[in-house]
Amino acid sequence: MENKNSIEVCFSPALLEHILTEPPFTVVVIDILRATTSICAAFENGVERIIPVASAEEAFSYKEKGYLIAAEKNGIKLDFADFGNSPDNFMQDEVKGRTIVYNTTNGTQTIKMVSTHKPVIIGSFSNISAVASFVAERKQNLVILCAGWKNKFNLEDSLFAGALTSYLLQYDNMYMNCDSAQAALDLWNIAKKDPLAYIQKAMHRERLRKLKLDSILEYCFTIDTCNVVPLYDGFEINKKEN
Amino acid sequence: MENKNSIEVCFSPALLEHILTEPPFTVVVIDILRATTSICAAFENGVERIIPVASAEEAFSYKEKGYLIAAEKNGIKLDFADFGNSPDNFMQDEVKGRTIVYNTTNGTQTIKMVSTHKPVIIGSFSNISAVASFVAERKQNLVILCAGWKNKFNLEDSLFAGALTSYLLQYDNMYMNCDSAQAALDLWNIAKKDPLAYIQKAMHRERLRKLKLDSILEYCFTIDTCNVVPLYDGFEINKKEN
Repeated sequence: MENKNSIEVCFSPALLEHILTEPPFTVVVIDILRATTSICAAFENGVERIIPVASAEEAFSYKEKGYLIAAEKNGIKLDFADFGNSPDNFMQDEVKGRTIVYNTTNGTQTIKMVSTHKPVIIGSFSNISAVASFVAERKQNLVILCAGWKNKFNLEDSLFAGALTSYLLQYDNMYMNCDSAQAALDLWNIAKKDPLAYIQKAMHRERLRKLKLDSILEYCFTIDTCNVVPLYDGFEINKKEN
Repeated sequence: MENKNSIEVCFSPALLEHILTEPPFTVVVIDILRATTSICAAFENGVERIIPVASAEEAFSYKEKGYLIAAEKNGIKLDFADFGNSPDNFMQDEVKGRTIVYNTTNGTQTIKMVSTHKPVIIGSFSNISAVASFVAERKQNLVILCAGWKNKFNLEDSLFAGALTSYLLQYDNMYMNCDSAQAALDLWNIAKKDPLAYIQKAMHRERLRKLKLDSILEYCFTIDTCNVVPLYDGFEINKKEN
């Protein structure tokens, strides 16, 4: 549509090569449980910058250089890491002013996939209004890239894609140009009254229960607890100053 | 779950390599608009067998051998083909007792992707009860493989995946083991009162409108107009006799 900017949702990193949106476009990367939520929490709590890395080995090589390391595999903190993947790990006093090197099962891999793209925004429920405002004001097409779980569709990232779509449709210049966005929006409309109740049926909910990480769920689905827009420049993530 | 059979939904052929279901499992291939709906219509109307082929060139090579050819690209019948991709093409008297060689943009490509797998069932709204009964009685895990549109998620195939999931959950032995099945089921629950109304927002709906193919929509979303279970053996599709 003339003078309008499209919203396309990519439900899995494995579908990224099949998106139909022509460049230039903005990318918002999503890993609600937990990487992108944690990154927003980190900047809200005074972290200086975050370096996402694609492997545990690479994270370990930074450890030897004295960086703080956040790293997990299949939800479990790696032995050499300073902490794991939960937002509350990134909200401690010791992280203020520091650089954190970060490696996770899905989220940081997905961020690295778009390392040659600009701009790449880190999105979560905690900064959804700030992200929507930033995207709409850019007047560019948008691809919402869900990290999923091992390249599979997941409910929590798809719900966020629907929520962000609903926020963006309130701006005159944005419209949906794919069935994925429509499906995500419909799922969000089912869930929005009580996202925490809806998400009880997600597979990852069960994984977190087994890891005794239930307590982070409420934070991960709470809207607008912060106003940061983390931007990835292909190497590191910095906080855009509003 | 012990003694239970899982339902996994694969929203795109590009996600097939990432499914988590361990073999052995049954595959149901879906291309509601229009390949798998047309295949069911063909068998209901006395077609002997269907040979899906992955390219227009291969379809053309069969033409020279005297086969009936159904072939389209991006919704438009190819010049050398006897007919295109709509169910009504397969319901004419001239197809009775014949073999049809079939090539389409998404559906036949997806069927060919699982040519080494057994069993592969062709599903559509028109034979949904027959497919559900066949799957549940096999007591095997299930992968519902959506053809999508050029490897992208689409609403019509996802709706069917949700509908088939809802039918299967009525059998004691079947359960969902992925977020895709849950999302598809939730979308179907929104749409089921009036699938034709819901599908107005699908991207492919607009493509069919432009091609003046609106008239086939009602047939494609009508449940249980036939009782056939087409099975693909890696080369050709035959009708399982009930």
